[in-house]
Amino acid sequence: MPRIVVDVMPKPEILDPQGKAIVGALPRLGFTAFSGVRQGKRFELTVEGPVTDEILEQARNAAATMLSNPVIEDVVNVEVLEDSQA
Amino acid sequence: MPRIVVDVMPKPEILDPQGKAIVGALPRLGFTAFSGVRQGKRFELTVEGPVTDEILEQARNAAATMLSNPVIEDVVNVEVLEDSQA
Repeated sequence: MPRIVVDVMPKPEILDPQGKAIVGALPRLGFTAFSGVRQGKRFELTVEGPVTDEILEQARNAAATMLSNPVIEDVVNVEVLEDSQA
Repeated sequence: MPRIVVDVMPKPEILDPQGKAIVGALPRLGFTAFSGVRQGKRFELTVEGPVTDEILEQARNAAATMLSNPVIEDVVNVEVLEDSQA
């Protein structure tokens, strides 16, 4: 069954304490290549049957109104995931 | 600056109470097209300078050992995000 992926990230100007904690911990495990980390959310919405334009529009509206908090978060991506992809 | 995106999702056999709550709430707001929702995490790792194979390998290792809990989560995606993308 097709799925629609919605990616939500904290806005750049919003403090992200989880990301800060991760970026501080990475070098202790030897991962020294990264200067910043931001943590957001990924939602996978399962659709029965084909993804029509109307369903994709519903997903965009759900992303903007329910899956994200527009005060502190941005919806950075809404896309259809084909069945073959993990 | 380039970023590496790491996507982590709960394993299919693991109960996802946040996803269940969302799939129950969506129809009440008129979003009736979705039969299931899973909620995972999206990390954006900032890299100074170009993303070499070694840095991408570091990101894969960090994803497997620190950004995900392999008992209950799968790393579903590790990819480079070009600067032009949101």
